[in-house]
Amino acid sequence: MGVENMEELMLDELKDLYSAEKQIVKALPKMAKACESEELKQAFQSHLEETKGHVERLDQIFEVLGKGSRGKTCHGMPGLLAEGSEMLEEIEKGGVRDAALISAAQRVEHYEIAAYGSVREYAKLLGKKQIVSLLEETLEEEKAADEKLTSISQQVNPQALEQAA
Amino acid sequence: MGVENMEELMLDELKDLYSAEKQIVKALPKMAKACESEELKQAFQSHLEETKGHVERLDQIFEVLGKGSRGKTCHGMPGLLAEGSEMLEEIEKGGVRDAALISAAQRVEHYEIAAYGSVREYAKLLGKKQIVSLLEETLEEEKAADEKLTSISQQVNPQALEQAA
Repeated sequence: MGVENMEELMLDELKDLYSAEKQIVKALPKMAKACESEELKQAFQSHLEETKGHVERLDQIFEVLGKGSRGKTCHGMPGLLAEGSEMLEEIEKGGVRDAALISAAQRVEHYEIAAYGSVREYAKLLGKKQIVSLLEETLEEEKAADEKLTSISQQVNPQALEQAA
Repeated sequence: MGVENMEELMLDELKDLYSAEKQIVKALPKMAKACESEELKQAFQSHLEETKGHVERLDQIFEVLGKGSRGKTCHGMPGLLAEGSEMLEEIEKGGVRDAALISAAQRVEHYEIAAYGSVREYAKLLGKKQIVSLLEETLEEEKAADEKLTSISQQVNPQALEQAA
């Protein structure tokens, strides 16, 4: 039994997120390379830069807590990223693949929205104001990334319908 | 290369969701058993009944499409559910575990919100009105389940803080 109180639960989930973000940093360049839409490619590339910033914010949080960032592997993320890779095997480069990549990426964003939402609540409850504000900055960027993907899908999906009908 | 157009992508993602919902039907009774809060237990149990309804709606959709529901395993869900099981091993029964279970369950809900959101957009684009309306019913229930969990967490988390400080 490793987690005995809310502070330890917060630390556990922060480590899970740290592992998740590191996995996403590795996956995003592959997703940017695999898509056809220039707008989608740019969205993945700029989200890669943001994601590196999320890792840095987590580093800051671990520093504030005086704790190490390692010691946990996020077991939710590999499956989500595998779904994206699976799509690349199943679908040739083009509009339909772009639509599928957006869908896979939005599952990843939603994972993070849920995870940052929970840990932000723990930090609030524990009175860790500085940590709350760092987590909120990232949470807002994840939500914005999700909305950006929805907006790109509104161009990509109708084009995919015409291309491969 | 299995998926060549948006109709095939929609079918592929519907099969993924079918597999995900079946996995959730198996996991929810374990989550209900593992938690301490009576309200959370009831939320998991009533979401189990809803989830069985989501499987039935998907069955209806496959019938409308004249397609089979099998042939795909959702590779995103096992990792998300494993995170919940991991929490049970790491945390003794009580408030902190309940908080962790809510967080794990909200990752699952968010997966579904993202997935149903994408496939609903494909169905809209393909002019499949009946399917859109079935998917929207489920999507609304997933969003309500997520909000319900947030509202339960507002009671569970502060109690967990007192219990195990």
